[in-house]
Amino acid sequence: MQRRDFIRHGGIAGILAAGAAPAMAQSQPSVTWRLTSSYPKSLDTLVGAADNIAKRVADATGNKFQIKVFAAGEIVPGLQVLDAVQNGTVEAGQTIMYYYIGKNPAMGFGAIVPFGMNVRQHNAWWYQGGGSELFNDFLKGYNCQAFPCLNTGTQMGGWFKKEIKTVADLKGLKFRVGGIAGAVLQRLGVVPQQIAGGDIYPALEKGTIDAAEWVGPYDDDKLGFAKVAKYYYTPGWWEGNAPSVMLVNQKQWEALPKDYQAVFAMACGESNTVATARYDHVNPAAMRKLIAGGTQLRSFSRDIMDACYKAAIDQYAEWGEKFPEFKKLHASYSKYLEEELAWFRVAEGTYDNYMSGRASRKK
Amino acid sequence: MQRRDFIRHGGIAGILAAGAAPAMAQSQPSVTWRLTSSYPKSLDTLVGAADNIAKRVADATGNKFQIKVFAAGEIVPGLQVLDAVQNGTVEAGQTIMYYYIGKNPAMGFGAIVPFGMNVRQHNAWWYQGGGSELFNDFLKGYNCQAFPCLNTGTQMGGWFKKEIKTVADLKGLKFRVGGIAGAVLQRLGVVPQQIAGGDIYPALEKGTIDAAEWVGPYDDDKLGFAKVAKYYYTPGWWEGNAPSVMLVNQKQWEALPKDYQAVFAMACGESNTVATARYDHVNPAAMRKLIAGGTQLRSFSRDIMDACYKAAIDQYAEWGEKFPEFKKLHASYSKYLEEELAWFRVAEGTYDNYMSGRASRKK
Repeated sequence: MQRRDFIRHGGIAGILAAGAAPAMAQSQPSVTWRLTSSYPKSLDTLVGAADNIAKRVADATGNKFQIKVFAAGEIVPGLQVLDAVQNGTVEAGQTIMYYYIGKNPAMGFGAIVPFGMNVRQHNAWWYQGGGSELFNDFLKGYNCQAFPCLNTGTQMGGWFKKEIKTVADLKGLKFRVGGIAGAVLQRLGVVPQQIAGGDIYPALEKGTIDAAEWVGPYDDDKLGFAKVAKYYYTPGWWEGNAPSVMLVNQKQWEALPKDYQAVFAMACGESNTVATARYDHVNPAAMRKLIAGGTQLRSFSRDIMDACYKAAIDQYAEWGEKFPEFKKLHASYSKYLEEELAWFRVAEGTYDNYMSGRASRKK
Repeated sequence: MQRRDFIRHGGIAGILAAGAAPAMAQSQPSVTWRLTSSYPKSLDTLVGAADNIAKRVADATGNKFQIKVFAAGEIVPGLQVLDAVQNGTVEAGQTIMYYYIGKNPAMGFGAIVPFGMNVRQHNAWWYQGGGSELFNDFLKGYNCQAFPCLNTGTQMGGWFKKEIKTVADLKGLKFRVGGIAGAVLQRLGVVPQQIAGGDIYPALEKGTIDAAEWVGPYDDDKLGFAKVAKYYYTPGWWEGNAPSVMLVNQKQWEALPKDYQAVFAMACGESNTVATARYDHVNPAAMRKLIAGGTQLRSFSRDIMDACYKAAIDQYAEWGEKFPEFKKLHASYSKYLEEELAWFRVAEGTYDNYMSGRASRKK
C-alpha cells in the first residue's frame, strides 16, 4: 500500500470506526495507526524497532491491525512526539521521555535519570515494582500511556577533544549533552549545548563545542565523531539504561479491541528484549573498530563521578520541592534502586566481574 | 472451562483441525494446546510465567487459541518434557535445556554452560548472533524448537554446611548440583548428587549431602535451606544466566496459523523480559530476609573460581571431541561471549561497579 492511500484510509477515522466494533467479533476489524518516531531513518537500531513492532502487530492480526511508521520530521519534528500523541495528531509515537523534562522533570522516570538504574533494574521497577503504574498515572495528564520498547543499555560518556582529568576541567566546557545531565553538569560549570544529531559533527569539527555525547559505539561511529574528537569517555552516568517507549493516545487505546491491545503490548514487550539484544550485538564490533582507528578510551575519575553524583542529588532535591510529581516518582525510584543494587552486587556483579577479569587476563 | 472438558475438546486433534484452516481466515480457528512444565506449581516465578503466556495468547486471539498449563508430574515428570514434546504427547512444554545433556551435552547451549553468558549476552547471542538458528537447527533432530521465556539471572552458588576455603575443600564434597556443573566439579573431586527439589531439604538436614544449590534467594528461601546450612555462596558460576524455554513440537508449530505463530512467539518474547523482571523484583527482599535470619554470605575464592574455570574448559574440550554438535555450538557461543565481555566491561561494567560501590559506601 502506498503511504498516501494509507493516510487516506487510516488515521483517526479508521480507528474510531474499528473501536465501535466488538472486540471479540467473528471477523477482526481493520485498524490503521500512524506512529511518529523521534528518531531519523538512519538510526536502524531505533526506528528499526518501531518497524519490527509494526510488522509483528500485522503478522499477529492477519494484517488487520496496521501501523505505519514515520521517521522524525515526516509528520512532526522528533522532539514533538509527545505533543502529537497527546493531541491525537497520531495514534502512537516512539520516543524517550527525558526529551520532555521541560514540561516536568518527572518525565525523566519514564526513561532514566543520572545515576539511575541499569536495564534489568529498570525493567524490574517498571513491570513489577509499580513503576509502570506510577508513571502512566502521571502520563494520564498528557492523554497517553507508555510501553517500553527498546533499551540501549548503559551509554557512553561521550567524545572529548581534550582529556578531562579533574572536576575543574569541567568548568566552561561546552558539552553537547541532553536534558537532565545538562542540568546536573551546569552545577559544575559545564555549558550544556542542545544540538540535533546531524549538527554535532560540524560543531565538534569547528570547535564550537568541546565535547559531545550521543549513544554508544554503534550509533556514534555512524556519526563519525572519532574523526574530530580523540577521547571517548565511559560511563555515561546519566544513562545507566535508556529505554525508548511507545506512547499511545489514551482515547485511541480505549477504542482499540481488547485482543489488539494485547497484541500491541506484547509486541512492545518482545521488542524490549530483542531490540536491546540488537544493541548488545552491534556495539562490540563498533567499539573494536573505533579503538583500532585510534580512539582513546578513558574512564571518568572517581572524583568526577562523585562530584557529578552529588550535583545530581542536589538537583533532585530542588526539583522535588518544585514538582510534586517528581518527588513522588523519585521516592519510588530511588528506594527501589537501592534495594536492587544491594542484590545485584551479590550474584550478577560478582559473576560479571570475574568474567570480565578473566577476559582481560587472557590478553 | 474444567480441565476435563479442555482435554476432551483439545489436544492434538484440536490443533490438527485448526491447522487445516487458512491462517488469514475471516474468523479465527479454535486451537487448544497442552503445555507441560518441568516445574512444580509452588514455584510461582517459573510456572507463573507459563500461566501468563497462556493468558496473553488467549487475550490476543479473543480466546480462540487456548493453552492449558500442567505442572510437573501432572502429565509427565518434570525431566521428561523434551520427550513429551518430541513425541507429540503434548504440543508444548516449559523446561530448561540443560536437563537433557544426557542425550547430548550440546543441549546446554539452549540454556547455559559454566562460565557462560549473563542475561543480556545470552539474549544478544540468541536473538541477534545466530544462537537461535544454530540451536533450533540442532533441535530439529528432536522434532521441536525452543523459545526463551524467562531468565532467573545469575544464580547463587548454593548452601554449604561448612565453609569452602580452598580447592582441596571440594574433595569428597557431596554436593547436590545439576548436570554440567556436576560434570565439571567431579573433575575436582566433588561427588555430585542428583536430587529433586523437594528432597533436598531432608538430605541436607540428615547430612546425606554437604551442600546444595537450587536457584537464588527467592526460590531457595521457599525451600527453607537456611535452616539446615549456614553458608550461602556466590556466584553460581555454572548459571551466569538461566533461560527457561517454551518447547514446541515442530509439526504442531507448522500446523499453527501464521498469526497464532506470531502471537505465541511474541508472548514468549514479552515474558522473557517480564518474568526476568519478576525474579529481579523478588530476590532483593528474599536476600535481605535470609541475611537478617543469620545466613552467612560467602564468595568463592579466586583460586576456586580459577580451578573450576580450568575444569570447565577441559570438560568442553572432551565433549567437543565426542559430540560434533557440541563443538559447533561451543565455537559460536564462546567466540561471541569473548566479544560481549570486551564491550560489557567498558560501559555496563564500569557503571555497575560505580553504583555498587556507592551503595556500599553509604552504609
